[in-house]
Amino acid sequence: MREFMIRTDLALEAKEQYEGESGQIKELQGVLVETSFLEGTNGNLTKVTILNKEGEQALQKPIGTYLTIEAEDLPRPDEDYHSQISKELSRQLLTLLPEQTRKSILVVGLGNREVTPDALGPKVVEHLCITRHIRLANLPTFLKKEYDISGIVPGVMAQTGMETYEIVKGIVDKTHPTAVLVIDALAARSTKRLNTTIQLSDTGIHPGSGVGNHRKALTQETLGVPTISIGVPMVIDAATIVGDTMEHLITALEEAHMVQGLNQTMEEFEEEDKRQLILELMDERLRKMYVTPKDIDASVEQISFTISEAINQAFAV
Amino acid sequence: MREFMIRTDLALEAKEQYEGESGQIKELQGVLVETSFLEGTNGNLTKVTILNKEGEQALQKPIGTYLTIEAEDLPRPDEDYHSQISKELSRQLLTLLPEQTRKSILVVGLGNREVTPDALGPKVVEHLCITRHIRLANLPTFLKKEYDISGIVPGVMAQTGMETYEIVKGIVDKTHPTAVLVIDALAARSTKRLNTTIQLSDTGIHPGSGVGNHRKALTQETLGVPTISIGVPMVIDAATIVGDTMEHLITALEEAHMVQGLNQTMEEFEEEDKRQLILELMDERLRKMYVTPKDIDASVEQISFTISEAINQAFAV
Amino acid sequence: MREFMIRTDLALEAKEQYEGESGQIKELQGVLVETSFLEGTNGNLTKVTILNKEGEQALQKPIGTYLTIEAEDLPRPDEDYHSQISKELSRQLLTLLPEQTRKSILVVGLGNREVTPDALGPKVVEHLCITRHIRLANLPTFLKKEYDISGIVPGVMAQTGMETYEIVKGIVDKTHPTAVLVIDALAARSTKRLNTTIQLSDTGIHPGSGVGNHRKALTQETLGVPTISIGVPMVIDAATIVGDTMEHLITALEEAHMVQGLNQTMEEFEEEDKRQLILELMDERLRKMYVTPKDIDASVEQISFTISEAINQAFAV
Amino acid sequence: MREFMIRTDLALEAKEQYEGESGQIKELQGVLVETSFLEGTNGNLTKVTILNKEGEQALQKPIGTYLTIEAEDLPRPDEDYHSQISKELSRQLLTLLPEQTRKSILVVGLGNREVTPDALGPKVVEHLCITRHIRLANLPTFLKKEYDISGIVPGVMAQTGMETYEIVKGIVDKTHPTAVLVIDALAARSTKRLNTTIQLSDTGIHPGSGVGNHRKALTQETLGVPTISIGVPMVIDAATIVGDTMEHLITALEEAHMVQGLNQTMEEFEEEDKRQLILELMDERLRKMYVTPKDIDASVEQISFTISEAINQAFAV
Repeated sequence: MREFMIRTDLALEAKEQYEGESGQIKELQGVLVETSFLEGTNGNLTKVTILNKEGEQALQKPIGTYLTIEAEDLPRPDEDYHSQISKELSRQLLTLLPEQTRKSILVVGLGNREVTPDALGPKVVEHLCITRHIRLANLPTFLKKEYDISGIVPGVMAQTGMETYEIVKGIVDKTHPTAVLVIDALAARSTKRLNTTIQLSDTGIHPGSGVGNHRKALTQETLGVPTISIGVPMVIDAATIVGDTMEHLITALEEAHMVQGLNQTMEEFEEEDKRQLILELMDERLRKMYVTPKDIDASVEQISFTISEAINQAFAV
Repeated sequence: MREFMIRTDLALEAKEQYEGESGQIKELQGVLVETSFLEGTNGNLTKVTILNKEGEQALQKPIGTYLTIEAEDLPRPDEDYHSQISKELSRQLLTLLPEQTRKSILVVGLGNREVTPDALGPKVVEHLCITRHIRLANLPTFLKKEYDISGIVPGVMAQTGMETYEIVKGIVDKTHPTAVLVIDALAARSTKRLNTTIQLSDTGIHPGSGVGNHRKALTQETLGVPTISIGVPMVIDAATIVGDTMEHLITALEEAHMVQGLNQTMEEFEEEDKRQLILELMDERLRKMYVTPKDIDASVEQISFTISEAINQAFAV
Repeated sequence: MREFMIRTDLALEAKEQYEGESGQIKELQGVLVETSFLEGTNGNLTKVTILNKEGEQALQKPIGTYLTIEAEDLPRPDEDYHSQISKELSRQLLTLLPEQTRKSILVVGLGNREVTPDALGPKVVEHLCITRHIRLANLPTFLKKEYDISGIVPGVMAQTGMETYEIVKGIVDKTHPTAVLVIDALAARSTKRLNTTIQLSDTGIHPGSGVGNHRKALTQETLGVPTISIGVPMVIDAATIVGDTMEHLITALEEAHMVQGLNQTMEEFEEEDKRQLILELMDERLRKMYVTPKDIDASVEQISFTISEAINQAFAV
Repeated sequence: MREFMIRTDLALEAKEQYEGESGQIKELQGVLVETSFLEGTNGNLTKVTILNKEGEQALQKPIGTYLTIEAEDLPRPDEDYHSQISKELSRQLLTLLPEQTRKSILVVGLGNREVTPDALGPKVVEHLCITRHIRLANLPTFLKKEYDISGIVPGVMAQTGMETYEIVKGIVDKTHPTAVLVIDALAARSTKRLNTTIQLSDTGIHPGSGVGNHRKALTQETLGVPTISIGVPMVIDAATIVGDTMEHLITALEEAHMVQGLNQTMEEFEEEDKRQLILELMDERLRKMYVTPKDIDASVEQISFTISEAINQAFAV
C-alpha cells in the first residue's frame, strides 16, 4: 500500500473506464487487450499491453505488460483451487522473466506487517523457500530448480525513516540479483476486485504514480535489473466508495423525480475532477483512511500462501 | 469491534445528534449531562447519565452511566501526556467500581488480534499486571494494591466458533471474579472521535445494540457481577462517511444553484432512514467493510498501553 | 509445555527405559506394545496400551491408549510428505473417537504463543476450519463432514492469572462439546524425538503428572467428555541433556583409563535418582530453563499445519 | 544471536576467566578494567578497555572499549527502575559516540523475530522514535534533539538468503548514516548474566568471533562509520551448562571419595579444550540448540523497551 493512495493500481480498471455502459470497448490508441479463460479456475486472464506514449497517456500507466488474473473464488479457503491459481501464476511469472534473468531472484515484500491488509508482501516473503545462502555455501538441497531465491521485508517509512527505494537499491547493489520481484497490496477502484484479482507487471512499482516522483520507483530503470511486480487489491480508498454511492443516490433521486438534471451535471465532470471534488468535500481526516473488508485477515493469510507457492514453483521446488 | 457495526457506540455522539447547529442542546427527558475540563490534558470529561426508559429511548442506549474522556492529543506519542490520561482513567474507573467489587477483576480483551484496529482489547490484556495466580498461591508481590487481576482474550467467532458470551460466562462461573472489565474497539460516527476518545460505562457491552439480541450481551444482568466497558473508537463504518460527504456535496451543489430543494428533501428523512437509504445504495460488499486511519497500528499500540496502565494503577501497582 | 517440566511426556520413551541395551524388551506387566510400519512415510506407528494399575506403575502414566507416530522427516518442508502424515494422524484420531463422540469437537491450543516452541497449540487452532457458529446459524458450507469444530487458545497462567483447567472447564460447561482435543508442546527425554514424534492419547493432559495434582488435569474425568491429547516434543529439559552428556564423558574417561568404576557407580543409581542428583548439582536458575533447536520457528510452523490439516480432514473437509 | 554461538559474547566474562577463585584478578597485559557503582540502580558499570594486540590475545576480543551494566533487577517489571537504567545507558552511549558522529544514527535490530530470545533486536527497533524521514521532509517535530534516527530489521539468513553484512552495508552505502548502532541478543557463559547484563562496545559485532571470518563483521572497518553494539545475554549454549554441571558433579564425587584425581585431570585441560571435549561428547543435534529461561518472553519485552528508551533519550526526545 503506497503512502498516498491512488485512484486505482490496476491497469484493468484503468482500461475499464473507457468501456461504455453496454460493455463496448472504445478503441484505445497504443493499448492491446487480450482476454482468455482460465480452465479449472472459473477465472480469466487479461493481458493489457501499453505499447507507447499514447497508451501511457490513455491509461495513465507506464509502457509495459500487465497480466491480470481474475478469480472470484480466490477468497475461498479451497486448497485445490488455490493450487490451480498458483500454477497459473507461476506460468505467467515465467513468461515475464526470460531464462537468462532467473539465476538469482530477490523477492521484496512491501508494506507494513502491523497493518492487516498491508501485510501481504511481508507474509509472502515469510512463506518463501529461501535458497540463495544454501547455494552460495554449496550445500545440497532437495529442490528441482537451480535458481537462487533471496527475500527482504524492508518495512515502511514510519518504521525505518528511509525510502523503500534506498533500502532495496542498496541491497541490490550489494547482492546482485538477476531480477527483482516486488509484492505489494494494492488499492482498487471497485469492491468486486478486492481479494479476487492478482496483477503481474514488468513495469515494477511506481509509488504515487502519475505524480512524477520517479526517484522512489522500484523499476528496471532504477534498480538496474528486470523488476516484476505482483499486486493484489486489499483496500479501496474512501473517496472511491463515496463517489460510487453518490452516483447511485443521484440516479435513485432522479428516478423518483426528486431532482432533475443532476446526473447530467455530474457526467459533465471528468472522472478525475469528480474525484477531486469529492476529496474536497470529505473530512480532511478521511483522506488518510482506507476501507477494507472485515475478514481481511483470512484473505491476506490465504492469498499470501498462493503467491509464495507460485514463486516457489517457478524458482525452487 | 462487534460483528455488525452499529451507527455509533458512543453515548456522547448519540447525545450530540440532539444538538442544534448552533451548538444549543435540546432538552432531553431522562438524560443528565455534565462536562468538566481535565487539567493538564487539554481534554474534557463528559458524564452522560441515562436515568430511565425515556432517556433510553432518546439516546438508544441502556440506562446507566457513560463517562467520556476526550483528548485530542491522545494519538501523540508523548509519555507524560499519556501518564496524565492513565491517571484520570484510573480515577474514573474506580468511581464506577465501589470498594466491595474490586477484590477480583477479570479483564476481557474483545476483538481479533489479527485485525489491526480490532486488536485494542487483546493488546490491553497483554500489557496487564496479572496477579490472581500469585495471590492464590500466597506468593509475595511488590505491588501496593491487593486486588486480584485476571485476563482473557476470547477471540472472535470466526476463530472460536463460539459466542464471546459463552466463553466469558463460562469463565466467570468458574473463577468467580467480583467485577468484569470489558475492553473493545468501537465504531464512531465522526472521524474526529477516532483515537481521541475513551468511553467508560457501567452498562457493559451490547453487541448489535438496539437490535434486541440480549442473549449475547456482556452485562451485570448476564454475567452476574458488575460489568464495566472501556471502549475507544478505532473505525468508522462505511455508511457514515458516505452520508457525511453527501451532505456536504448537496450543500455545495445548492450553493452553486446546480440543484434546488434537495437538502430540504434530505432533511425530511429521519437520521436512521437516511442511513438505511445509503446502506441500500451502497455496494453489498461495502456493507461488510470498515474505514480506519492508515497509521492505526501506532495508535492501537499507544492507547492500549494507556488503558493497561490505568487498570494496573487502579488495581495493582 | 507444562509449567513444571517433567522427565518425559512420551509413553514411548517411558517404555524404552525398560529396554536393555541390546534392544530387547523386558516384559512389562499390564502394558501392551504393538508397532507397525507406516507405508509411504518411512515412519512407525507404536501403540502402547496401559491396561491396569500395574502398567500405570511401570510407566508412570495413566491407564489408556498412547499412539505414537515417529517420522524422521517431519521437520522437512515437503508438502506431499506432510500430507501423508496428516492422513495417518487423521485416521488414528478417529480410532480414538467413536462416531457418537464426534458431533461437536472443541480444540484447545495450550501454550504461550509468545514463546516459540510453546506456540504449537495456539498455531494449530489458528489454522483450523472452525465451523460450529456456521452450523448453529444454519448457514450452508462447502464441507463434506457435518461435525462442529470450535477452538480456544486459553493462554498460560502468567498471562491469565487462571488455571487452564478453570478456563476450559468453564467453556465446556457452557458450550457442551461431545469431545475435547487438547494440543500441547511436550518435553522429550531424547533429542532425536524433537519435532519427529507425534503422540495421541485418550488420557488427556496431566500437568506435572505423577505429582498427584489431579485438580488441574484436562481429562474425561475432569471435563466430563472424552478428552484426546495431541502432543509433539518441542523442548528437552536442561537436566536431560546434562545427564546424557555426562554418561558419554564417563564412558570416554574410563576407556582412556582416566577414571575407574565411575560408570558402575552411576549405574547403581536409579534413573530417577540420577536425575535428582543432576538437578541438585545444576545452577538453580538452570532448572527453570528449556533447551530447544535454533530452527524451532520453522518446525512449529510446519508441524502445526500438519496437525490442523489432520483435524480438518477428520471433522470438516 | 549469531548463527554459530560462541563461548561468551561478553568481555566481562572473558576477563573473569582470569580471576582466581579468591576473586583476585591476575594482571592482564594490554587490558584496563574500571568498575563503578551505579547509584539508584543497585548495579555496577564495568569498563574493560583492550589496548593492544596483547589484550586482544588475552581476552580473545578485538581492541576497543566494552562497557557493561550489571543490574540484577533488570528482569523485574519496575518502571522507575528501568527508567534509571535507560538514563545510564543513554549516558554511556553518548560517551562512545562523540558529537560529530551523532547527526544520523542507523539502528540495526539483528536476530529472528520469530524466535523469542532472538527477537530483542527487532523489538528495540519497533519501539524507536524514528525521525530521519520527518527531518528530510523538513516537517516540524516535538522533539528536543535534532539527530536523525533510522532503523532496519534485516532478518536472519534462513529468512533472507543474504548475509546480514550485505544488507546493512548496502543500506549504509545508500543512506549515509554518521554512525550505526547494532542491537543483538548474546550468548552468555553463566546463567546469572541472563537478562541482567547490558554490554555496549565500540567494536561492533563479529559473528563467530575468533573464527577469523572478517567478511561478515559489522564494524567501523567494514561499514565505514563508527559502529556501536548493544547486546544483552538471552541464551546460554548447551555446552556451557553441561560443562558447569559436570564440574559440580566431579567435585561432589571427589568429596564423597567416589572418584579421585578427576578434578585435577580436568583442570589440566585448557578452558577451550574442555569445551571442545564436551562438544564432541554431546549429541550432534544438541550442538544446534540453545538454552533459555521459561519466562524469556516477558524479559525480551521489558528489556527491549529499556534499550529503545535509552536510544530515544540520547538522540530524540
